[in-house]
Amino acid sequence: MKTSNKSKKENISSNTDKLKRQIDKLKEERERLYALLNITKNLSAEINLEKLLIKIMEEVRKILNADRCTVFLYDENTNELWSKVAIGLDDEIRFQADKGIAGHVWKTGEVVNIPDAYKDTRFNPEIDKKTGYKTKSILTMPLLNLYNDVIGVFQVLNKKSGSFTRHNENLLSAISVIAASAIENAILNEEQKKSFTSFIETLSTTLDTRDYITAGHSRRVTLYALEIARIMKFDQEQMEIIRIAGLLHDIGKIGVPEVVLFKDRKLSEDEYEIIKRHANLTKSILNKIHFLKKYRAIPEIAASHHERIDGKGYPEGLNGDNIPLGGKILAVADVFDALTSRKPYQDRMGLDEVMEIIEKDTGIAFEPFVVYNFKFIRLNKLILVLEYGHTEEMDKDELKILESHTLSDIIDIRTKAGKSASELEVENVFMRYYLREYRVK
Amino acid sequence: MKTSNKSKKENISSNTDKLKRQIDKLKEERERLYALLNITKNLSAEINLEKLLIKIMEEVRKILNADRCTVFLYDENTNELWSKVAIGLDDEIRFQADKGIAGHVWKTGEVVNIPDAYKDTRFNPEIDKKTGYKTKSILTMPLLNLYNDVIGVFQVLNKKSGSFTRHNENLLSAISVIAASAIENAILNEEQKKSFTSFIETLSTTLDTRDYITAGHSRRVTLYALEIARIMKFDQEQMEIIRIAGLLHDIGKIGVPEVVLFKDRKLSEDEYEIIKRHANLTKSILNKIHFLKKYRAIPEIAASHHERIDGKGYPEGLNGDNIPLGGKILAVADVFDALTSRKPYQDRMGLDEVMEIIEKDTGIAFEPFVVYNFKFIRLNKLILVLEYGHTEEMDKDELKILESHTLSDIIDIRTKAGKSASELEVENVFMRYYLREYRVK
Repeated sequence: MKTSNKSKKENISSNTDKLKRQIDKLKEERERLYALLNITKNLSAEINLEKLLIKIMEEVRKILNADRCTVFLYDENTNELWSKVAIGLDDEIRFQADKGIAGHVWKTGEVVNIPDAYKDTRFNPEIDKKTGYKTKSILTMPLLNLYNDVIGVFQVLNKKSGSFTRHNENLLSAISVIAASAIENAILNEEQKKSFTSFIETLSTTLDTRDYITAGHSRRVTLYALEIARIMKFDQEQMEIIRIAGLLHDIGKIGVPEVVLFKDRKLSEDEYEIIKRHANLTKSILNKIHFLKKYRAIPEIAASHHERIDGKGYPEGLNGDNIPLGGKILAVADVFDALTSRKPYQDRMGLDEVMEIIEKDTGIAFEPFVVYNFKFIRLNKLILVLEYGHTEEMDKDELKILESHTLSDIIDIRTKAGKSASELEVENVFMRYYLREYRVK
Repeated sequence: MKTSNKSKKENISSNTDKLKRQIDKLKEERERLYALLNITKNLSAEINLEKLLIKIMEEVRKILNADRCTVFLYDENTNELWSKVAIGLDDEIRFQADKGIAGHVWKTGEVVNIPDAYKDTRFNPEIDKKTGYKTKSILTMPLLNLYNDVIGVFQVLNKKSGSFTRHNENLLSAISVIAASAIENAILNEEQKKSFTSFIETLSTTLDTRDYITAGHSRRVTLYALEIARIMKFDQEQMEIIRIAGLLHDIGKIGVPEVVLFKDRKLSEDEYEIIKRHANLTKSILNKIHFLKKYRAIPEIAASHHERIDGKGYPEGLNGDNIPLGGKILAVADVFDALTSRKPYQDRMGLDEVMEIIEKDTGIAFEPFVVYNFKFIRLNKLILVLEYGHTEEMDKDELKILESHTLSDIIDIRTKAGKSASELEVENVFMRYYLREYRVK
């Protein structure tokens, strides 16, 4: 009886233990599921591919208690696996898609979980050699999307205690689907952006090329304007607006008859009025485009590059307060390119004369603050835009010399009496490129 | 002693019960979490807004055991809440964003959980009246994204047993963040597509409008080509390729000097050679654009609209086997529009003559199978494209009459001796529109 009672007790106690163990297991599972849901929330809102990859790698590293995680994506153009940013490395990693353990996983879709990489013949020690990192344990899994396509490879390195478990594998496999969706969305987003931008760039270049006088104009105006915006500390979104507005500021010229547009003799007053229509046409064409909400200011900015702060510009005759800042920036970039661009059968206008013309109109046509900021452009950047399309044979050391001075500096230097040796050098290098003798074709 | 033993036993048993209840609760929670993760997986891969909304509504309806779920999104242009597709309803629902319980939730961000809608003064019975649905219990919650912005409203109707619980609220709130991310991604995807398409459309229209002779040409060619593709049962992606290629097939004309392009007298042989360059230019311009992978065939298709199956076309002189099908479709659409478009000071060419010219070249220039399918175009659609831009004053009943016959039919009818009354009517209606007398400006 006693024994039986004892054994009953033991039974009960072992039963309780079993229940408690089950509870612990369920709690552990719950924790994992919450962690997973949390990752999901964070990933699904990120559509910038680079930021997303960093987020995924960081989250996986944490949840698997590992030293490093890398997501490799497949590049079909080069048949390589690549990783945009691996935590702790500055460079992009790239290798042939059949190399190493990641390559093996990419090819076979197998999971590879090994406690000591250097004891495995599939391991490619090249990257360790390059980076000085010491790989030990590795968990490598295919990155599968919802439709079971392998879109890349997860590689988790050096678990902090012990090696990767079956449980780690399951967790990573659950993350995989969600990460893959987020990555595919981000890639689509990037591709769509690239598609849109390349369209605008191609169109802008093609339109400019219709006439040798304007070839490259929109591109150079855009580059000057972006440099001014950078100096004025515009954020990325504002920069993008400047870029698109710059590339498209002359799109209205599609609607101006070529006999007027490309006339190389003096224009009659009527013809000049026809030319002036292009600014208005730019606006009406761009207004028909359904820009993303954040880009809605583009038509107005692009169309106001011939406004003057004294209100005597066109198409609207806006005064300074009413011209959008982006338009004021384009105005300065536009006139600088118009004055400095090389013409067939005519050398580039002298820098002093160019700046004199701009200074004379500053406060009348051009916003002083914009001109002021424009003059902070570094000379290396200035010459690279001035000579856009002819920059291959430029000397790197000379560009380095130019980097230390601005447009404002060179204007000072040129009017100065006693020039230092380094000032003389900067002037000589810059003016030599500025005045290079070749004719545009 | 006995009592004490009994109470111990009771204690043990109540303890076991407690553990079991805890296990049940944990299991219930686990089930919920898995359901949630599952929803997440399904939602995060869907970037088509309409399909996504349907998926969300269906998943929420199931997981909350309700009769209906609607996701309302905010339309800032009209200050309305709208739902694209409500399960069980065909129409879009739209109402002012301050109306009803959904409006209340949108404005206040509050959760509204009521067992009987008709007893609540905030309830707007209008929609029930319109649809004949009988709303009873309602759970309405703000649709919050990761950054706590309210982007819309969840409305779940008529729980199948009892009313919505606190537990239901928590679950819906967890779904909200994930649904909101997916919705925002899908909207961005749609906006980007719209942005790209509107750019192409605007550009295409603008280029055509440079000359009154070609005004509307690309749009009409695209519409004819899409109709042929539809008859040939192209899928959505293939249709999209046709659409973009159609809109851009003449983009190369940017690079052809206007003095040649718009010359209204007979062209010299040299000038004709210059005109012919546009097809090649279309290809080289489009090749510079980074199209999404699924659209990579567009440059080739767009550039081959002047190829002939006898190999005597341009720019490549490809023979029938090597011309992409899309190019063959554009070729038929292009010639049909060139022949039928109204010219200033000249009436539209007679239909019989147009078709004679096309038939004569079928099997020589044009792919017979494409011409064959083109002739299945319904007459209402044909006249709407022929008269594109002048269709406001067309009679709906007459269009209805035309719907029952095809281009092939009208060709037959016109050469037929004994025409039935309905055939005569179709011919009369169609030819009246076809030969309407007005001049294009």
